Amino acid sequence: MGISDSIKASVLALRPYTLRPDRASVKLNQNENPWDAPAEIKLETLNRMKSRAWSRYPDFMPQRLHERLAEFSGWHADGIIAGNGSNELIQALLMVTMGAGKRVLITEPTFALYRQITTVLGGEVLSVPLRSDLQFDVTALLEEIEEKQPDVTIICSPNNPTGCVISDEELVVLLKAARGLIVIDEAYHEFAGPGCPGGQPDWGGGHSAVPLLGDHKNLIVLRTFSKAMAMAAFRVGYLLAAPELAREVAKAVLPYNLNAFSQTAGEVAIEMFEAKLQPLVEAICTERDRLCVELANIPGLVPLPSQANFMVVLSNKDPKQVFAELLERDILVRDVSGYPMLKDYFRVSVGTPEENDLLVKALREILQ
Amino acid sequence: MGISDSIKASVLALRPYTLRPDRASVKLNQNENPWDAPAEIKLETLNRMKSRAWSRYPDFMPQRLHERLAEFSGWHADGIIAGNGSNELIQALLMVTMGAGKRVLITEPTFALYRQITTVLGGEVLSVPLRSDLQFDVTALLEEIEEKQPDVTIICSPNNPTGCVISDEELVVLLKAARGLIVIDEAYHEFAGPGCPGGQPDWGGGHSAVPLLGDHKNLIVLRTFSKAMAMAAFRVGYLLAAPELAREVAKAVLPYNLNAFSQTAGEVAIEMFEAKLQPLVEAICTERDRLCVELANIPGLVPLPSQANFMVVLSNKDPKQVFAELLERDILVRDVSGYPMLKDYFRVSVGTPEENDLLVKALREILQ
Repeated sequence: MGISDSIKASVLALRPYTLRPDRASVKLNQNENPWDAPAEIKLETLNRMKSRAWSRYPDFMPQRLHERLAEFSGWHADGIIAGNGSNELIQALLMVTMGAGKRVLITEPTFALYRQITTVLGGEVLSVPLRSDLQFDVTALLEEIEEKQPDVTIICSPNNPTGCVISDEELVVLLKAARGLIVIDEAYHEFAGPGCPGGQPDWGGGHSAVPLLGDHKNLIVLRTFSKAMAMAAFRVGYLLAAPELAREVAKAVLPYNLNAFSQTAGEVAIEMFEAKLQPLVEAICTERDRLCVELANIPGLVPLPSQANFMVVLSNKDPKQVFAELLERDILVRDVSGYPMLKDYFRVSVGTPEENDLLVKALREILQ
Repeated sequence: MGISDSIKASVLALRPYTLRPDRASVKLNQNENPWDAPAEIKLETLNRMKSRAWSRYPDFMPQRLHERLAEFSGWHADGIIAGNGSNELIQALLMVTMGAGKRVLITEPTFALYRQITTVLGGEVLSVPLRSDLQFDVTALLEEIEEKQPDVTIICSPNNPTGCVISDEELVVLLKAARGLIVIDEAYHEFAGPGCPGGQPDWGGGHSAVPLLGDHKNLIVLRTFSKAMAMAAFRVGYLLAAPELAREVAKAVLPYNLNAFSQTAGEVAIEMFEAKLQPLVEAICTERDRLCVELANIPGLVPLPSQANFMVVLSNKDPKQVFAELLERDILVRDVSGYPMLKDYFRVSVGTPEENDLLVKALREILQ
């Protein structure tokens, strides 16, 4: 017997999704919050975990966290599913929709996992490139939806790795045209400030599609605690959708999917968000805008203004070379030159003010 | 648009996997370790988590945990995948093997999730019932494998909920006959003591199929930290297989699937296993055998001897009634009367000596 007798051909043909295991003191490669979670959040979480019995399963469904997320997001608890990172929820959604003959529409370049999971599940991936200015090509998306009627359309907004945003008006046009589901991955929405189309300057400043959920039963919104919420270590994400749709997706979510520690950390982060995390998000947005100006002043670099906590930078020097020379200086950015349309770009996450200064200084040296 | 336009028919037809949210002081319904994780393990884990940056992603692959698991299990690190509970690894395995026209063979009654996930993924479930004495019907399994050649066969050994075990000799016969993969879910193997067929009385006393991995490239072994290891709260499981097979399964495992806290807790539990956890496992096995004798002495009950930390009990009183009367006495067991072949049974997890005494006393009253 050979392994290929049992493993599906689509999987055998697939290259694993990997990340180079580089390390550096200044880590600007994963769009994390550059500050650690605030000490008060860490302490309160650890205290709550001391008294809990570790030998006992977490709740079958994390009801208390769902209720906190409902207050936090302004959506019904029975239309919310917390997951082991939003990745798990993308996977669950694709598990209940994909199979032979089923199709996902994505934009490109975008987060690589949408294509990876769809392919494993035997679905087909359709894609629409961004416009040449690296903004969403909504006209082309609308045409593709009307012609092909994909089962699922996934739009990452703000988009990883380009930071572009789809406006509410544009999204509503697509929602009305689509017979299938439309997923907005809002991993970075807290950074999409008032300047973005349809911006909502209240909590977290983040532009969000959540207010559209009530009128659009085919809309799904994904969010994460791994970026603005400073909890990448704990893998907390959540999905928001009409309750009847959430119930179907939940059939592919494993019981006890979110461990007790991450549930607790998520609850504490919500409780302390306004006092402890919102100021960090605001500082990151300020730094992003400053960094963009500083990079634009370096001859040979053109940063793309972004609504997220990262940006891609057009470089007249080979970006692989820039990546390598930054790494020599103990600064790690992301080499995105293998992505469609981005062969002349690298991506930087927004760091602390000190980290951003180090990045700018190093790039000045490298580009001179 | 209706949801049914996008969700697969196999999913729409599926009933969600649920658990009644009953609570009781004596909790004997989920086969957990009845003692909390030892204080030294909790303290060391919490201390290690204090200094770690929570805003940073865990490792892309938990290499250090994989190395600890390799030493712990006696298998190669490159043939090991740690997961968010072994459930996640069952799911990943089925994602890379299942689809329309693909088939999984299970025994019944068994853990309900194998059927649930296969159905979501559009695969077909074949099943072979246990013999009337509730032991594996290896002859029937062999016939089914030879005739149908399922892509995957899953055997939970010791089996949940009956506690029966497949011997090495029987398993080798199946491995040789199968062109597909055979999965042994060893969630409870630490409790399968020297008395069981092929028992290995060294670490943890647990009988295991791991020593067969070297000669059988179509064998996959699953394990968990949720039972003997006293860490159900943290959802740590692992898969062991030939490295070339593990590589294919890993394509369906999400990056950063295991959060930093659970990775750390898993490492600490392995480091302290011999000193702190092994004595608890031995105490549970002793209690299991005592409980079995005590239950056998209650008129109207016939417990089925088990190699796990639970057992099913044949009751001449309606098991739903027994369940309800136990719950009135603040004792929670599992109602398994809806499982195939078990309509006259309930299942009890082995608790602490005090909990088991309370259970026996209550059952004496209820059955009198």
